[in-house]
Amino acid sequence: MYLGAIEAGGTKFVCAVGDDDGRVRQREMFPTTTPEETMRSVIRFFQQFELKAIGIGSFGPIDLNKSSRTYGYITSTPKRKWENFNFVGEMSKYFPVPIGFDTDVNAAALGERLWGAAKGTNSCLYMTVGTGIGVGAIVEGRLLHGLLHPEMGHILVRRHPEDGFAGCCPFHSDCLEGMASGPAIEKRWGKKGAELTNHTEVWELEAFYLGQAIAQYILTLSPEKIIVGGGVMKQTQLLPAVRRYVIDFLNGYIQHEAILQHIDEYVVRPGLGDNAGICGALALAKQALGE
Amino acid sequence: MYLGAIEAGGTKFVCAVGDDDGRVRQREMFPTTTPEETMRSVIRFFQQFELKAIGIGSFGPIDLNKSSRTYGYITSTPKRKWENFNFVGEMSKYFPVPIGFDTDVNAAALGERLWGAAKGTNSCLYMTVGTGIGVGAIVEGRLLHGLLHPEMGHILVRRHPEDGFAGCCPFHSDCLEGMASGPAIEKRWGKKGAELTNHTEVWELEAFYLGQAIAQYILTLSPEKIIVGGGVMKQTQLLPAVRRYVIDFLNGYIQHEAILQHIDEYVVRPGLGDNAGICGALALAKQALGE
Ligand SMILES: Nc1ncnc2c1ncn2[C@@H]1O[C@H](COP(=O)(O)OP(=O)(O)O)[C@@H](O)[C@H]1O
Ligand SMILES: Nc1ncnc2c1ncn2[C@@H]1O[C@H](COP(=O)(O)OP(=O)(O)O)[C@@H](O)[C@H]1O
Ligand SMILES: [Zn+2]
Ligand SMILES: [Zn+2]
Repeated sequence: MYLGAIEAGGTKFVCAVGDDDGRVRQREMFPTTTPEETMRSVIRFFQQFELKAIGIGSFGPIDLNKSSRTYGYITSTPKRKWENFNFVGEMSKYFPVPIGFDTDVNAAALGERLWGAAKGTNSCLYMTVGTGIGVGAIVEGRLLHGLLHPEMGHILVRRHPEDGFAGCCPFHSDCLEGMASGPAIEKRWGKKGAELTNHTEVWELEAFYLGQAIAQYILTLSPEKIIVGGGVMKQTQLLPAVRRYVIDFLNGYIQHEAILQHIDEYVVRPGLGDNAGICGALALAKQALGE
Repeated sequence: MYLGAIEAGGTKFVCAVGDDDGRVRQREMFPTTTPEETMRSVIRFFQQFELKAIGIGSFGPIDLNKSSRTYGYITSTPKRKWENFNFVGEMSKYFPVPIGFDTDVNAAALGERLWGAAKGTNSCLYMTVGTGIGVGAIVEGRLLHGLLHPEMGHILVRRHPEDGFAGCCPFHSDCLEGMASGPAIEKRWGKKGAELTNHTEVWELEAFYLGQAIAQYILTLSPEKIIVGGGVMKQTQLLPAVRRYVIDFLNGYIQHEAILQHIDEYVVRPGLGDNAGICGALALAKQALGE
């Protein structure tokens, strides 16, 4: 019996089956088109296996409130065809097993805590910097929900004094995502991030925004570990610069050696590498089984 | 048998005994001078009663990590005489009962959840706007700790374009506390807040900063209820303006009726009024007894 895992993203769905220790046994990818088409492939994939539980880490916003009428739905997403899609309901029609459901970034945070860079901690953040910016959180040993779920990618940032870019978030223009996501980089500089590797000013500015945001998260959530992944972080020179800005922005206020002396082990890459998302969904399945 | 409670502030200590339902039976206040002198009064007060547990809501920073050598200490406070004071250790010398220890604002959050405005929720924030700005949080039913404890009063804010005040935080100059605490108001306008009641521009600017900060907290923590107290909030015209700015800053991003339609019941005054702090310490005592 396997654990089933779905990493449901805006452009593709990754489906996998794996073991209790987070090992992926088989995986497949399907493009995100319409719910009918994509889900047909997803269901056909899982029907090959005997599953004991399924975990879904999904793009959002999603309804995570178990006492809500629309628990398990994708809600007000800009991807119109997926609006009000009953994701958990659809899966449970075909697979009558425990189903764990959470945001893609919460899933990744759980995976990193169970098997990755946040092993042994009681709290961590998982931040992805890609097409969007999202952050998942474990707090006091549990995934952070609340009224809805956090949307930390949209916090307001203070602009760099030399940055005239208007920002590209349709809601807030120059929030973090509007200033520092992959598309923001592309729009500001006129080229994709991957083609800007040697332009140090690009990454200095990017680090300014990401470091500032992480400092805000530290002041607000005080996590024991911060993990940063996503396409933009493929720029290997970026993370050290981000760490520098975290320290600059906190300016000595948080007196803890994890920050003051060991920032290299505090703000880190995903321990699971590019598997953080799918392993996170496995972790959600495992958690659902235990509940 | 009573629950004992200490609200330990930078200028005064409030001590009280009370019941399991949060009712205060007797209380006394002592000025915060030296640990020796203040604690002598505290201990003498409690020796009049039979106690079954004690709760301490303390100014900080404090060490809340139970596996740390300095658990229960006040740590790197600017109040030099209290630096490295073993608060829990000192109390347990005289009172061999369970002792709950947390930040003053976490205590107040717990009290409001048990007996006040956040009753029935699984998550809430308690924000105080006074000499400093502090925020306590309950997340997934538990008090939020982590690496240390949150220091949400020091998040960076975006300046109002017409505000030329430099800010007064010794660490960050123009962080939230540096721009919007009681002393910041006094320094910017040259008069104490209580004497500025009729100056609408003062409270519009204050609401801009507080509303902005609360929007950031919502994006990061997604609490079910936000409670705002402290001396500055005695300006009754302020809270409605704060709510307005919360909505402005979120700009429709968080699609939830609690915010979009019922903000008056979402961002609220303390249900326990001026007793939030001391009742919070009672709640810490009650929680310690249950552990
Ligand atoms: N090597 C790179 N350097 C900088 N940016 C990159 C690099 N590779 C991908 N990106 C950017 O990352 C974004 C895609 O992020 P990714 O995490 O791969 O996907 P998604 O966020 O859609 O799940 C794109 O905006 C892309 O331009
Ligand atoms: N009516 C009022 N209007 C505006 N500000 C006030 C008012 N009353 C007190 N304050 C301010 O609140 C601060 C004190 O906050 P308070 O919560 O009472 O104490 P503390 O934060 O020290 O525990 C002072 O800076 C004071 O100027
Ligand atoms: Zn935004
Ligand atoms: Zn500050």
